[in-house]
Amino acid sequence: MSKINVSVCFSPGLYNEYATKSNVVVVIDVLRATSAICTALHYGAKKIIPVVSVEVAEQYLDKADIVGAERGGKVVEGFKYGNSPLSYAGSHVKDKTIVLTTSNGTFSIAAAQNAEEVIIGSFLNLDSVVNWIKCQNLDVVLLCSGWKRKFNLEDSLFAGAVVYELLKDGEDIDITDSSIAACELYKVAKNDLKGFLKDSSHRKRLKNLNIENDVEYCLKSNQMDLIPILTHDGIVKLERK
Amino acid sequence: MSKINVSVCFSPGLYNEYATKSNVVVVIDVLRATSAICTALHYGAKKIIPVVSVEVAEQYLDKADIVGAERGGKVVEGFKYGNSPLSYAGSHVKDKTIVLTTSNGTFSIAAAQNAEEVIIGSFLNLDSVVNWIKCQNLDVVLLCSGWKRKFNLEDSLFAGAVVYELLKDGEDIDITDSSIAACELYKVAKNDLKGFLKDSSHRKRLKNLNIENDVEYCLKSNQMDLIPILTHDGIVKLERK
Repeated sequence: MSKINVSVCFSPGLYNEYATKSNVVVVIDVLRATSAICTALHYGAKKIIPVVSVEVAEQYLDKADIVGAERGGKVVEGFKYGNSPLSYAGSHVKDKTIVLTTSNGTFSIAAAQNAEEVIIGSFLNLDSVVNWIKCQNLDVVLLCSGWKRKFNLEDSLFAGAVVYELLKDGEDIDITDSSIAACELYKVAKNDLKGFLKDSSHRKRLKNLNIENDVEYCLKSNQMDLIPILTHDGIVKLERK
Repeated sequence: MSKINVSVCFSPGLYNEYATKSNVVVVIDVLRATSAICTALHYGAKKIIPVVSVEVAEQYLDKADIVGAERGGKVVEGFKYGNSPLSYAGSHVKDKTIVLTTSNGTFSIAAAQNAEEVIIGSFLNLDSVVNWIKCQNLDVVLLCSGWKRKFNLEDSLFAGAVVYELLKDGEDIDITDSSIAACELYKVAKNDLKGFLKDSSHRKRLKNLNIENDVEYCLKSNQMDLIPILTHDGIVKLERK
């Protein structure tokens, strides 16, 4: 078997350039959509249905158990939930179906939906993602959601963490220029992720939104051992064999 | 006057996300188109006319003094010149009009052509680019050509060098996540650019093409003090006031 290729795509706007005939995808939106999805499933949510538009999310308001909608870092008016992971941390999500639309993360999921498999990554489930990749025999695209199709630091750092862990564990993978860059960036930042992100655009954008607790939470590695996977029925916890 | 924003765009495929209502652009294709353009103008070429397709370049074969065409790192069949900077280094280009098409660089120039001003950057004219940016009062996009719309290391390192020099000189600029990332990457690599690039995709792709001399040449900073600028008449040397 030839080596698998692990590449980092820094924006959903470039996904088609990185997709091969047959590849799997890790969707990344560290602050905060993919951290929220991991958290909800960890607390027992039945599934998360990602939708791209607020309009579609609105149609679920009287149908789904919980509907989350975030734009520009804020909960959209008329909704109780946004993309704060902490708002999904608790027994209130157990066995619930959650419909979710966010500024960037749900757009990435849509961009990648025709891949062979699409899973959800965040620092919270870093090791689970790394271990899942080790079992793949298709090329892997680490898809950073970025901010409005632009590069962002936090998603790139997580992608770099995945590459770093794979290489540290001696995995015999092919890496690309973007994987090298993300990994080097992570090596610079890894001992103080929060400090490194202090000048990032996301932190500047969100500093008035009181999400410091969320940021603290989202940057903690390996808080849960699970793989959220996209199915035709929504995002569910991958059942291990 | 408010601070200007300096952002790095890692692929021409994302240029529209980074372009503002009014911005200037530095087009970067270190290996090798923008290094070749700098070199040709340094050796006295009158102008370089960038064209996107080989077909258009062919139409110039009996009209222009010199026509260069490169695809996949090689000189296109039927052409004498490709994108090797060393092939444009000499008195044979003096006062000549050069028509040039390359895999990535000319595509970036086309993507940015509606910007207020478009200049050409390479390590060869690093300080000139930095000094030019210091005189701008519009936002600056450092546009990496990448490889087939994907991220590449060498262009990102040059963009990072520009950001690094601006910050080192105490310029009061706004930077973005991509500028931070490029600058950090450059800081890791700057003492041994060639060594850092040894695993890069470009070097792997081109290792059989005997371009080691070109790579060595393209990674040398500040070999010439000039700014190639895009005009309606082609790329010419910017006349200093």
